[in-house]
Amino acid sequence: MSTADLTVLTLGSPEDPSPLRECFDAGLDPAQIVAVIGKTGGTGLGDDPVRAATVTMIERTIADAAGREMPEIAYVLSGGSPGLITPHIAVITRDREATSGGLAVGTARSGAISPGDLGRQGHIDAVIAAVGQAQRDADLMDPRRIHAVMVKSPSLTTESVAELDRRGLSPISRDLGLGPAGAMCFINDAAALGVAAALGEIDRSAASASNVHNEFDLFSEVAMTSAGGERTDIEVIVLGNASDHGGALRIGHSCTRDPLDLGAVERARVSAGADIDDSIRYAMGKMTLPRTRTVRGNPIGWHDEAEAALIAKAMGGALLAATTGDTRVFLSGGEHVSQQGPADGNPVAVVFSTAHPASTRRRPPAR
Amino acid sequence: MSTADLTVLTLGSPEDPSPLRECFDAGLDPAQIVAVIGKTGGTGLGDDPVRAATVTMIERTIADAAGREMPEIAYVLSGGSPGLITPHIAVITRDREATSGGLAVGTARSGAISPGDLGRQGHIDAVIAAVGQAQRDADLMDPRRIHAVMVKSPSLTTESVAELDRRGLSPISRDLGLGPAGAMCFINDAAALGVAAALGEIDRSAASASNVHNEFDLFSEVAMTSAGGERTDIEVIVLGNASDHGGALRIGHSCTRDPLDLGAVERARVSAGADIDDSIRYAMGKMTLPRTRTVRGNPIGWHDEAEAALIAKAMGGALLAATTGDTRVFLSGGEHVSQQGPADGNPVAVVFSTAHPASTRRRPPAR
Amino acid sequence: MSTADLTVLTLGSPEDPSPLRECFDAGLDPAQIVAVIGKTGGTGLGDDPVRAATVTMIERTIADAAGREMPEIAYVLSGGSPGLITPHIAVITRDREATSGGLAVGTARSGAISPGDLGRQGHIDAVIAAVGQAQRDADLMDPRRIHAVMVKSPSLTTESVAELDRRGLSPISRDLGLGPAGAMCFINDAAALGVAAALGEIDRSAASASNVHNEFDLFSEVAMTSAGGERTDIEVIVLGNASDHGGALRIGHSCTRDPLDLGAVERARVSAGADIDDSIRYAMGKMTLPRTRTVRGNPIGWHDEAEAALIAKAMGGALLAATTGDTRVFLSGGEHVSQQGPADGNPVAVVFSTAHPASTRRRPPAR
Amino acid sequence: MSTADLTVLTLGSPEDPSPLRECFDAGLDPAQIVAVIGKTGGTGLGDDPVRAATVTMIERTIADAAGREMPEIAYVLSGGSPGLITPHIAVITRDREATSGGLAVGTARSGAISPGDLGRQGHIDAVIAAVGQAQRDADLMDPRRIHAVMVKSPSLTTESVAELDRRGLSPISRDLGLGPAGAMCFINDAAALGVAAALGEIDRSAASASNVHNEFDLFSEVAMTSAGGERTDIEVIVLGNASDHGGALRIGHSCTRDPLDLGAVERARVSAGADIDDSIRYAMGKMTLPRTRTVRGNPIGWHDEAEAALIAKAMGGALLAATTGDTRVFLSGGEHVSQQGPADGNPVAVVFSTAHPASTRRRPPAR
Repeated sequence: MSTADLTVLTLGSPEDPSPLRECFDAGLDPAQIVAVIGKTGGTGLGDDPVRAATVTMIERTIADAAGREMPEIAYVLSGGSPGLITPHIAVITRDREATSGGLAVGTARSGAISPGDLGRQGHIDAVIAAVGQAQRDADLMDPRRIHAVMVKSPSLTTESVAELDRRGLSPISRDLGLGPAGAMCFINDAAALGVAAALGEIDRSAASASNVHNEFDLFSEVAMTSAGGERTDIEVIVLGNASDHGGALRIGHSCTRDPLDLGAVERARVSAGADIDDSIRYAMGKMTLPRTRTVRGNPIGWHDEAEAALIAKAMGGALLAATTGDTRVFLSGGEHVSQQGPADGNPVAVVFSTAHPASTRRRPPAR
Repeated sequence: MSTADLTVLTLGSPEDPSPLRECFDAGLDPAQIVAVIGKTGGTGLGDDPVRAATVTMIERTIADAAGREMPEIAYVLSGGSPGLITPHIAVITRDREATSGGLAVGTARSGAISPGDLGRQGHIDAVIAAVGQAQRDADLMDPRRIHAVMVKSPSLTTESVAELDRRGLSPISRDLGLGPAGAMCFINDAAALGVAAALGEIDRSAASASNVHNEFDLFSEVAMTSAGGERTDIEVIVLGNASDHGGALRIGHSCTRDPLDLGAVERARVSAGADIDDSIRYAMGKMTLPRTRTVRGNPIGWHDEAEAALIAKAMGGALLAATTGDTRVFLSGGEHVSQQGPADGNPVAVVFSTAHPASTRRRPPAR
Repeated sequence: MSTADLTVLTLGSPEDPSPLRECFDAGLDPAQIVAVIGKTGGTGLGDDPVRAATVTMIERTIADAAGREMPEIAYVLSGGSPGLITPHIAVITRDREATSGGLAVGTARSGAISPGDLGRQGHIDAVIAAVGQAQRDADLMDPRRIHAVMVKSPSLTTESVAELDRRGLSPISRDLGLGPAGAMCFINDAAALGVAAALGEIDRSAASASNVHNEFDLFSEVAMTSAGGERTDIEVIVLGNASDHGGALRIGHSCTRDPLDLGAVERARVSAGADIDDSIRYAMGKMTLPRTRTVRGNPIGWHDEAEAALIAKAMGGALLAATTGDTRVFLSGGEHVSQQGPADGNPVAVVFSTAHPASTRRRPPAR
Repeated sequence: MSTADLTVLTLGSPEDPSPLRECFDAGLDPAQIVAVIGKTGGTGLGDDPVRAATVTMIERTIADAAGREMPEIAYVLSGGSPGLITPHIAVITRDREATSGGLAVGTARSGAISPGDLGRQGHIDAVIAAVGQAQRDADLMDPRRIHAVMVKSPSLTTESVAELDRRGLSPISRDLGLGPAGAMCFINDAAALGVAAALGEIDRSAASASNVHNEFDLFSEVAMTSAGGERTDIEVIVLGNASDHGGALRIGHSCTRDPLDLGAVERARVSAGADIDDSIRYAMGKMTLPRTRTVRGNPIGWHDEAEAALIAKAMGGALLAATTGDTRVFLSGGEHVSQQGPADGNPVAVVFSTAHPASTRRRPPAR
């Protein structure tokens, strides 16, 4: 058993290493960092220089601090912090010696994925394999203990589509955006079906290319997937609980029933086995357009393609920040329907920090 | 005494008169319509054709139904329904014979305003006069009974700025947008200070041009102001309660303390004197950038000028819809700080529908 | 206009003057005390020595502190603090010079009532007159501003019934208890009908002897009435708000819909015009057996006569303390149905203390 | 694996079998009944004829319906339903063939206990053994799955104390009541320590006679213990969940932090792994005097010995009924401090009924 910790840092400029350095000075061991999740400023588009600059800054700062033992770290950074979202990172460390239970983390990275496989069976199968590998890394073999699976896939780019053309192959879609036929939607949903199959949420046979971004009754409650043009392989971060009870941090999840549903954070508390007065350390969510295009009986305005992701992040971020009281939330989205959560709702995962470390559960493990 | 009613209609296409016609068929008297508030689709920019088409459709449909007695109606329509907002209108009628108390409405329109006066003293004074006139129209002379004042001013346009230049005059700002030095911000805040002075929220002497979009401790709790390039005069709608208690509908208001504050709708209930189980008929609000540019201690991402209004409306609409359970909410905004509500918060006004018409208050009026 | 203040003091032994003395030392002016409401320990029966000792202690301590200007003070003390109730007093002062609005108090005392009139028309009429006098004393002529009327009547005793017999007169009931035919029920309901008629909650003609403890659709929402064998006259305390808005303290009321209804305190907040984060200074309520003898569809156990008052106070006190978070609550009751509140519910009145003295309402009074 | 069901029936007179008969007519299989929990009317004292008559009626009605296969049933009935409690029974059945998870039940009965052992080591050890036996019966070997353990011990009576005297032995206390030195308190706390040791809440070595009703930091979160003069052996009912997730019914528990704590029912929901909109099927709790004799900083009135149990049941029942919305709650108590729950709080256990039988958890068990 190992135990994970999660520290949230407010970012200043993307080049400014001081928040991370202060955190090392305060005792966080850079050699224990295994994953970084967060929101950067910038546009959130494929070639967003702010996200790239942020990753470079983080890598250099950790390498400086960790010396030679530079760890391999999994990154799931979502670009674009419109509205009330604070650009930030959640730094996840793992103590291999600790046995105190609670939050556990595992990561995995696939081999290189051909652009022609993106959104198709090869992509799904690579995600299934990587999730299994991350589960083993986390020692979270029981899927019921897993509450969030973050996947970052490669996205299609103008260059990779041109390359496929040269080779006489076709991409899953020539629309590179988030619209109804956008490649982004197929890629993220292929990853979501891969997660669902790996965790047994759907049958392995249902994780087939023909169901991707198509059969919306097939979905994962815990997958949050996105894609970036800078990647050629798949990054997976699995978060769960090492034990039924206890631990300084615990994670839970729930899906919103529709985009107005403010109850998912508290349902995630139930799912985490957290106590009523445990505080919220970090929240992650998605915001996608409901399949019905209506909410509580009324059609919604939403907006045209170009700004869909911007608006989705702003709204989802505002709702999650209002529910948790903290603007440092992970929120990505904008897809026109997705297989991340049910067709009209979205997954939410929340890490709770225990208010009563000693007293919540006096009983020893079963004899 | 007169009594107002408010009916919310979901709009289809801006040319489709059927929602309004069905409502007339169901008994709403077109001759009693005095005001229409709502959100249209489209861009929400100055020359938004969707808003114009919607107004034309409404006017024709009412004129058809009302016959010769075509009433003069006050319109406060906000264009742009990004995200979870449903394009809709709230049709406000007034029965001059009714004496049942509760919601009261009054309207007024100023004479033509010179573009050179916009955002300046002449603008403020015209708003003060128009609010007073609308109060008399509503028989709401006691400002404590007033919970929302909607003001629609003319905005500056490229044409009106050119005309000012020809006449050797200068506009309040040549930046026509919603940014920190945008003319929109000065115009909306001049209107807000006018409302505040008319209702005694600030001293009359404080309603001076030098304080507009500058002294943010001077503000109105109930003003929701916007501007449109199509106008040359100022439209005012005043909403309040005709009586201390009772009435089928009652209005109340509150200001959010910061953009994450989900409590304003319930505080508006207290302010309305509404009962705990009275239902929400309609909610109106604003979403502007907090002066501090931080929320609960963290800097927020917000976004650049071009998309500020779009994002503000999407976020404000999502939060108000999530709190009320209805996507048909009035939400405008995007200003970089405003004198509508406190510097870090925004006004919210809510119309409640009585659950216990007979029993809430058994006592007769004082002898 | 005058303004009232209310200070809650935890009592030690009934003879111990130190809580009151400390409060004088801290600045409370004994000459401003006009009323004392509270719960004493002891049995709560007619000849309860603890209540008598408490009154004596209070009177002496105030007289000592106030010197010659010994004021006439109205007392409504309820004996018996079973379960979670803390024996305490709420000391109500009045500043005749203050004009800050909010809580207002008035008191009145009738002339001597004949035992033969108790529970009958003469009793009702004396209550009507005394309430009017207390309203004038409070300057609360508008009954809509009144949220609690505490009445203490004489009760019938073995002695007074014997005296009536000697004079050939009959008491309203020879059952001196709180049971279905108990004199206590008739006496308290006669007082409640008097309050209802004085405030216009019912027609004056409906305040007739034949309706007492009989027509349960006739009731007062704000009357809390009790009786004591030591009295020969009627004591009335009226509590209301001097102004529509503002004041350091504000009072509101509501009735429970049934004995499980935990919402009355928050509905009283709405009724008080108090803000959502105003704190609770003091709460008062009754607990009587519902007319239907069932709660939410199930018959309840309640208990036999002898312990009905004890159990009612314990339950009502526990529920009011749990809702307010304070065990120092006024709670009397035990009657088998009453005209204090609706037949299946009970009145609750709550004094709130303003959280935002300056900012809740920036507007000056109407010009 | 087996699955339990729980049906709540409102009782009429203690002799009236019709509620139980109707329930058999509606399909409940009498041969599956393993336990009956409930509240009867009557006094709640040791020789309460109402409780005895109720048990006789239940046994006969079940025997009539079950024919020859008369099952052995465990009874934990608490006499006395003061105030808002509805006399009722919760009939618990077990289907040995069902494998749907959720609520599980097990029962056990000890051999005869000598009156001289009551409240002492022999008593503790017998409870430990019986709890283990009930766990095996329920297939709930993991104590973390157990949320309520109801224990009914013999109580000391005038007769059994006289018999001990004759044999030259001494009882644990000659005060047979619930007061600070009452035998009832020692007996119930010996049982509570036995439960705590059996489930690993405390070390086995801490379950010693010298700690009974003495070391209040040693307690069980899930034990609800009582005693009756009619018993010579110990009855144990263990309730828990057969599975981590799912099941039509699930049980959870929590302890109140003080007697005003209204949050325990919702914390029990978290503990049950129940969803936010699962409904409450049945709630069980205790109400004992807090060790500090103060609540939120103020001393409480409580009451003298004779009525302590009556008042405790009335208050605890009213609070639990108000929180659950149902007057059919199990509530016993009145002890002066106890080792059932922490020294200032009390255990609460709640059975929830699933709102979303199919959808709450889509994932199959781990492979």
